[in-house]
Amino acid sequence: MSQLTISKRGHHMPPSPIRKLVPYAEAAKHKGIKVYHLNIGQPDIETPKRVLDAVRHSDFKILEYSHSAGNESYRRKLVHYYEKNNISINYNQIIITTGGSEAILFGFMACMDDGDEVIIPEPYYANYNGFAVSAGVNVVPITSHIENGFALPPIEDFEKSITDRTKAIVVCNPNNPTGYLYSKEEMEVLKELALKYNLYLFADEAYREFCYEEKHFSAMQLQGCDDNVVLMDTISKRYSCCGARIGAFITRNKELYNTVIKFAQARLSPPGFGQIAGEAAIDLPDNYFDVTKAEYKARRDLIVKRLNAMKGVYCPKPGGAFYAMAKLPIDDSDKFCQWLLEEFSYNKQTVMLAPATGFYGSKDFGKNEVRLAYVLNLDSINAAMDCLEKALEQYPGKA
Amino acid sequence: MSQLTISKRGHHMPPSPIRKLVPYAEAAKHKGIKVYHLNIGQPDIETPKRVLDAVRHSDFKILEYSHSAGNESYRRKLVHYYEKNNISINYNQIIITTGGSEAILFGFMACMDDGDEVIIPEPYYANYNGFAVSAGVNVVPITSHIENGFALPPIEDFEKSITDRTKAIVVCNPNNPTGYLYSKEEMEVLKELALKYNLYLFADEAYREFCYEEKHFSAMQLQGCDDNVVLMDTISKRYSCCGARIGAFITRNKELYNTVIKFAQARLSPPGFGQIAGEAAIDLPDNYFDVTKAEYKARRDLIVKRLNAMKGVYCPKPGGAFYAMAKLPIDDSDKFCQWLLEEFSYNKQTVMLAPATGFYGSKDFGKNEVRLAYVLNLDSINAAMDCLEKALEQYPGKA
Repeated sequence: MSQLTISKRGHHMPPSPIRKLVPYAEAAKHKGIKVYHLNIGQPDIETPKRVLDAVRHSDFKILEYSHSAGNESYRRKLVHYYEKNNISINYNQIIITTGGSEAILFGFMACMDDGDEVIIPEPYYANYNGFAVSAGVNVVPITSHIENGFALPPIEDFEKSITDRTKAIVVCNPNNPTGYLYSKEEMEVLKELALKYNLYLFADEAYREFCYEEKHFSAMQLQGCDDNVVLMDTISKRYSCCGARIGAFITRNKELYNTVIKFAQARLSPPGFGQIAGEAAIDLPDNYFDVTKAEYKARRDLIVKRLNAMKGVYCPKPGGAFYAMAKLPIDDSDKFCQWLLEEFSYNKQTVMLAPATGFYGSKDFGKNEVRLAYVLNLDSINAAMDCLEKALEQYPGKA
Repeated sequence: MSQLTISKRGHHMPPSPIRKLVPYAEAAKHKGIKVYHLNIGQPDIETPKRVLDAVRHSDFKILEYSHSAGNESYRRKLVHYYEKNNISINYNQIIITTGGSEAILFGFMACMDDGDEVIIPEPYYANYNGFAVSAGVNVVPITSHIENGFALPPIEDFEKSITDRTKAIVVCNPNNPTGYLYSKEEMEVLKELALKYNLYLFADEAYREFCYEEKHFSAMQLQGCDDNVVLMDTISKRYSCCGARIGAFITRNKELYNTVIKFAQARLSPPGFGQIAGEAAIDLPDNYFDVTKAEYKARRDLIVKRLNAMKGVYCPKPGGAFYAMAKLPIDDSDKFCQWLLEEFSYNKQTVMLAPATGFYGSKDFGKNEVRLAYVLNLDSINAAMDCLEKALEQYPGKA
């Protein structure tokens, strides 16, 4: 009998709360049921042809390691992309990463030690947990509430939670999973906290372009906190190329940059083909996002309208990203989402949702909430909402 | 004044010992000096056209996330690749990773906690240090010696170093940086150690195909230690496509596999384009490696002959990979390699080497050794050896 052991962090590493329902979805499909996937942020928008063509028309002979910080040509071009977004940085403040995922991991690893704490408004992107476990860091959630659309919790809630182990705050703006768009004023509050308590402010701005009414205000536009702010970026959602695995770690903090570059050197370089795709994306016409944004906005308006028309359902209108959180008249969102796949169908169709429990750090929160990713077209959203409406009528576990 | 802090692991993370000389190489080039790069394992062999074409001729419309373990089609094909190499595994024992780097990081993270120990024969691949620091793990080096060509140190040396914190042994076979090819008998010794002390045996077989006289014996061919063995693989060197960033974490240990898949889910998926390249590489004709191997063998024979013809130089003949370690009559390999770039030239040319100090975990070891990567053609190797010969005559810091 082997006495080999798994590490503590291996035991603590949470399985993906979104992917754990996948076997039930597969079983439903085997039974001939069509499943509308509103559970995951994989857009149905085509990757721009120009981006794919840049890779397909490339003509190098050897696929070499790039610079550990990424190709200089790409980093220099990214400076212009950020300029257009009113973010002023230099190419040597950018490290190209393997997806936004690696940027988050690098930030956690370089800024925090075992037992340190990072504050994150909840509900939050579930994979922050995985990177925190990898780095031995404890996530301290500050609860935001569906009643006010998941606005930034009051500053007192943050201050109450700050200890001498607190090293950073993470803000995802616009937010996954809530879709909430933090205002300039809210970002200023976070800046004051970061300065007062010497905290890093990690900003995940994966959905920067997808803001429907208000303009996006980036953490990199905050003044007087250059050493505190870290931008964790990704091209995955921006250009619908999640599989490229290209992101960026960006900071004006030189000591931190020099630390993270050592982590980047250890893993040699970010993906080569993906960097070509990312560089080409910067040359897309300025109106590229207009079409995509209009499409997402129409979907948002439809899904929010459909949800709020259902009995006992409440869905605040999200200002950005392509997610909506809804409160449902149910006892347990995990059970409900599994039931949708295992037991329910309507006209041989059903819908797959993400239980909100996976997005809360606080135990037992989110039991009557689900996240819906509006990554399908209007017809599919309507069909999915028809399913949900019927399901709520039939579901035995009412709240 | 900011009181933001860098993590301990951020401070401990070593800069790349190979890349730290790069600024001196750049300065030499600015002075018009040609630099022969024998310092880094970036092959000059062209990536097979078929591999690049698979990416260039791809015709999907959306570059989506793949399965966190990698595309099933790729994993199923890899089973055949391993079969050809007399390694029997299933596709659900494979997790496609972002380079071999991520496979090593996942292994360290999933098997070891802060303060645990991993035993590695030194000199060893310097980036193991980076992954160990990321995981909070201490590397315990067991010294192998140039006098017997860096053969496996005696089993007593291992047993003396095993403590109750020892969790794993890493073996890189054929070895980077020594080029040493471990025999079946030596691998059996490691197996007995792993079984006796309940250790994981992490096998880095990046250079499997590059064995010049003897056949490769994989750790996955060891019998009766399925739970102990982890294969950390990569396509980088095999098909000269380092920039694809595609590797694999492979184990028959189900609990470990299920743990690592959670780490894989947190970072979503490995690179999409690279997976297409990797899958296409498996269809290369069986004789693909014959040409590459013959080329590397000729280079090895030349570089070893040239080195051993120099006064005071000793270079054992490596059995595999594309590295050679040489003992030089010098005081300090770091100083010498810098001097080669900063102060020396011969016919407006010089050579860049990797000081061996970066490959030893024991302090001050390797001061009279350098690593040479024979990744350049025969003419370049001859020119580089001409430079080295002259340099050793002129270098003021004799041993």
